Amino acid sequence: MSKQVAVILAGCGVYDGSEINEVVLTLLALEEQGARYQCFAPNIEQAHVLDHLSSEEQSQTRNVLQEAARIVRGNVKDIAELKAADFDAMIMTGGFGVAKNLSSFAFKGQDFDILPCISKAMKAFHSAGKIAGYMCIAPVLLPKVFEGVKCTIGNDVDVAGAITALGGQHVECSVDGIVVDDQYNIVTTPAYMLAENLKQAKSGIDKLVAHICL
Amino acid sequence: MSKQVAVILAGCGVYDGSEINEVVLTLLALEEQGARYQCFAPNIEQAHVLDHLSSEEQSQTRNVLQEAARIVRGNVKDIAELKAADFDAMIMTGGFGVAKNLSSFAFKGQDFDILPCISKAMKAFHSAGKIAGYMCIAPVLLPKVFEGVKCTIGNDVDVAGAITALGGQHVECSVDGIVVDDQYNIVTTPAYMLAENLKQAKSGIDKLVAHICL
Repeated sequence: MSKQVAVILAGCGVYDGSEINEVVLTLLALEEQGARYQCFAPNIEQAHVLDHLSSEEQSQTRNVLQEAARIVRGNVKDIAELKAADFDAMIMTGGFGVAKNLSSFAFKGQDFDILPCISKAMKAFHSAGKIAGYMCIAPVLLPKVFEGVKCTIGNDVDVAGAITALGGQHVECSVDGIVVDDQYNIVTTPAYMLAENLKQAKSGIDKLVAHICL
Repeated sequence: MSKQVAVILAGCGVYDGSEINEVVLTLLALEEQGARYQCFAPNIEQAHVLDHLSSEEQSQTRNVLQEAARIVRGNVKDIAELKAADFDAMIMTGGFGVAKNLSSFAFKGQDFDILPCISKAMKAFHSAGKIAGYMCIAPVLLPKVFEGVKCTIGNDVDVAGAITALGGQHVECSVDGIVVDDQYNIVTTPAYMLAENLKQAKSGIDKLVAHICL
């Protein structure tokens, strides 16, 4: 039986949405593992829109679900429709969209809030005893939801410090590694918190996905 | 000596820009071949902006270069700066952006025009005796520039018909295949003209990139 995996997106573009390479590499790894997947994103406005060339803010509004659809040729659903019962696992890819659209970590630091539909999904997979993978900046959400969770975002001092301050156990990890929390059944990898190119990002993401599909 | 490859982008998103998966798979294949790359895109407004969820047009303007920057974390240059002398090869990825932003094929059919900076780049690589790869819809540009060129877009009757009407030689090809024109030193693959998933797209793109890097 092939695994059915829900993948959570946060827009389209590393600085205000999902890290595109991480999404594509995750879906490729799932296909290579023989898994099936469905992507989901919240149907909300982005926190802001950044010109990815100049890093300047643009006077535009964009919708997280509509933008996420760009990466997956339209094949993304409103996360309001996500039922953990329909899936074997979930994966949250990274990018600043996780810290800006799915939560307010980028604006409030460790006092951040998580979008209710996102924390609901995180809890639902755990309550159902299903495995979840988080990459890049996404693991910073974990200690808000799972007390004392063990995870990695690589070695960034500030983000690791926020995880520790929230009661999480941060474990330093190289770009090609994963950290597994057996209590919560959660696996994390640094991806573009450390990756300098696609091959490096792929090395850790492939391991995360392989662990998810065990 | 590792090959240096220029990759031409057309925005961010299959329906009004570059096909994102094709870009990421192309850059991944280049890294796996030990090649280096630099992406380029024209600094122009997109023809239009489509909601990738509903396919409806949005009342927004977006810049092709700025949007392309989303795929490659900002690492893209204005195609006005592209000098064929600095590279060993060029690759043009697909997506409707090729038919809407780099040319007017989506709007005018076989009477389309090609953006001057794009046809200039296409000719420059050929004049310098350097190899070029085109995937997905991009090969439809070829017969306007290279008389009698042999190429593939898979098996789409309308697009193949346009290539033939323009004097090109269309060769049917499966998603995991490539077509090589030795006279013009051009290699083509159908990619998402036929691909139903990432693995399929990767099979042909990997062959195109391997041929480029021979």
